[in-house]
Amino acid sequence: MAEAAYDTDNIFAKILRGEIPSHRVYEDEAVVAFMDVMPQGPGHTLVVPKAPSRNLLDADPSTFGTLFTVVQKVARAVKQGFGADGVTIMQFNEPASGQTVYHLHVHVIPRFDGIPLKPHTGGMEKPELLAQNAEKIRTALLS
Amino acid sequence: MAEAAYDTDNIFAKILRGEIPSHRVYEDEAVVAFMDVMPQGPGHTLVVPKAPSRNLLDADPSTFGTLFTVVQKVARAVKQGFGADGVTIMQFNEPASGQTVYHLHVHVIPRFDGIPLKPHTGGMEKPELLAQNAEKIRTALLS
Repeated sequence: MAEAAYDTDNIFAKILRGEIPSHRVYEDEAVVAFMDVMPQGPGHTLVVPKAPSRNLLDADPSTFGTLFTVVQKVARAVKQGFGADGVTIMQFNEPASGQTVYHLHVHVIPRFDGIPLKPHTGGMEKPELLAQNAEKIRTALLS
Repeated sequence: MAEAAYDTDNIFAKILRGEIPSHRVYEDEAVVAFMDVMPQGPGHTLVVPKAPSRNLLDADPSTFGTLFTVVQKVARAVKQGFGADGVTIMQFNEPASGQTVYHLHVHVIPRFDGIPLKPHTGGMEKPELLAQNAEKIRTALLS
């Protein structure tokens, strides 16, 4: 059951290289966070390490401290920025789990009492709304 | 929106103190992993830091490196031990997200092509089956 090798032309690698635009909310030397373009709810953000790995299974464990420190920062920011009641963190490994882009990424999704997650295949969000939501998160990250 | 304080009598705190039994698959000085008694699929394991926090939002970020290194070990082990096609990692913060026990924990769930997750309220699994599954994971962790 060997997995496929890391593909340097996956869409998140292209976003990290700036070849494809994204609505970034955070960046440091090791981690980038940007809006999911097919959000399961308003404020759905992806936290992505710059180091290449297919998913969590083959990642260098030395990257996890930094990665999940940013996940926490973004989780607090989306909760504040969207006045959310909770936050769901999800990370998928391989197609059986719902992984569709093969560069490690962590989903950070604001949650509201009584409102279920939308399916991840719910369609592309309007860019202007993603831009507005990104601004809410950037503002919350600064506070 | 201040959250409730950490309750030292939550069920995972009791499990960590050994006051309630669990099917443990891993333990080190900072982290314990044991079988979820209401599994969303065979091999559903919880990875739990010993340090007290309500969830990821209030956790000490210095614990994340160790915690997610164990999440990776357990993810690889459940994939191997159950011959799974993938692994889903989930972590819930506050009731709106589905959190029901208020001590930080990470769900590690083997996934199989075409088989959806069972709801988390699917009922208590038989202890003898949890014991068998725990043994599969312990064996995989040693290999």
